[in-house]
Amino acid sequence: MNRVEFRKRIMAENDAAAADLQTRFEQSGTLVVDVVSSPGSGKTSLLEATARKLGGEQRLSVIVGDIATQLDAERLHAAGLQAHQIVTGGACHLDARMVTDALEAQPLLPAEILFLENVGNLVCPASYALGEDFKVVLLSVTEGDDKPFKYPAIFSRAAVTVITKIDLMPYVRFDLERATNQILSLNPDARIIATSTYTGEGLAEWCRFLMERRSAKVPVPA
Amino acid sequence: MNRVEFRKRIMAENDAAAADLQTRFEQSGTLVVDVVSSPGSGKTSLLEATARKLGGEQRLSVIVGDIATQLDAERLHAAGLQAHQIVTGGACHLDARMVTDALEAQPLLPAEILFLENVGNLVCPASYALGEDFKVVLLSVTEGDDKPFKYPAIFSRAAVTVITKIDLMPYVRFDLERATNQILSLNPDARIIATSTYTGEGLAEWCRFLMERRSAKVPVPA
Repeated sequence: MNRVEFRKRIMAENDAAAADLQTRFEQSGTLVVDVVSSPGSGKTSLLEATARKLGGEQRLSVIVGDIATQLDAERLHAAGLQAHQIVTGGACHLDARMVTDALEAQPLLPAEILFLENVGNLVCPASYALGEDFKVVLLSVTEGDDKPFKYPAIFSRAAVTVITKIDLMPYVRFDLERATNQILSLNPDARIIATSTYTGEGLAEWCRFLMERRSAKVPVPA
Repeated sequence: MNRVEFRKRIMAENDAAAADLQTRFEQSGTLVVDVVSSPGSGKTSLLEATARKLGGEQRLSVIVGDIATQLDAERLHAAGLQAHQIVTGGACHLDARMVTDALEAQPLLPAEILFLENVGNLVCPASYALGEDFKVVLLSVTEGDDKPFKYPAIFSRAAVTVITKIDLMPYVRFDLERATNQILSLNPDARIIATSTYTGEGLAEWCRFLMERRSAKVPVPA
């Protein structure tokens, strides 16, 4: 078996497991969001801020993937989410089997929204379906405005790009229009939301977007 | 063949190709540096600054890997390096075969220093030998001081960690001592150099480190 054939087999196995997850999430009525970015773009901070805004009215759960450490699950648990950490060891992305195992290991459902905080990596997570309703990609202004064209797979596939750390715009070279044009040329339907968890800017828009998507799902049984 | 066996085969093939590269680099007397970081940590900016400091006295070449675009090779060529872009398509890291092919495609040797600017990814590049003398990992202060323990493989294996964008320290939560302690607990021999390509801080130390390593190699034939 050569590399291409082997990769096809891996992807087919993942797609089958992801389809099973999707059925399960339809039944539980949960909105499932795969959260992808580079290391340190602010995935955990965005989810903490989301929990502060929506946690009172919505049951929020999160499965968080890291190569090592339980740090993020601890932060998210402290922010009020039902949190389960997957320590992937060498694996550079979550796959559908890991999500299935996490749902066995901990009672994360029922929940109105389940976040899948992926391993910090703009490349590999783009290829793996996890049964999610949509992917969101984060891009911090400190990473530079050339990243969408350099990592086109994830920016093409993500329904929404959240620009993070816009409070740092005065100190870095980041042309928001240039980044926006790149994202929209890769994905004309993409939503783009500029945020800062430090100033709070854009967080209401992000939560409104989540609740619009949430309202399109069947309500979750109590 | 299962995943573990397949991965072993891939790594064995890569190790063999990397050993061939190492022989070749010994013969050419070139110092070879594998440069690894998250997307947007400043690999290209560091190499541009290095070329400004050392380019007058040293022949510098670079092989730069990106998923898509030729942008970085263009920047590095403009900075005076002999630059070859590898567009990896889906591949999330450089491997030894790609480096071998790049050396066939373009006359990058002889050179005193050859940089291998890896794909922006803290995970997968850690596992692949490229015939290099050492790996350097960049960590920008905007990514947060918790990253060494979250991505232990690369911080364990890199001979030197270059902390980048330290001009932004006043605006972000980054505890340099915390990051330093994590790096040294993973790799007690690691060198840690704090830099800013904006203010120039730390660049002389970085170039001194390169030239120390350079001086341990056999001189390159003219």
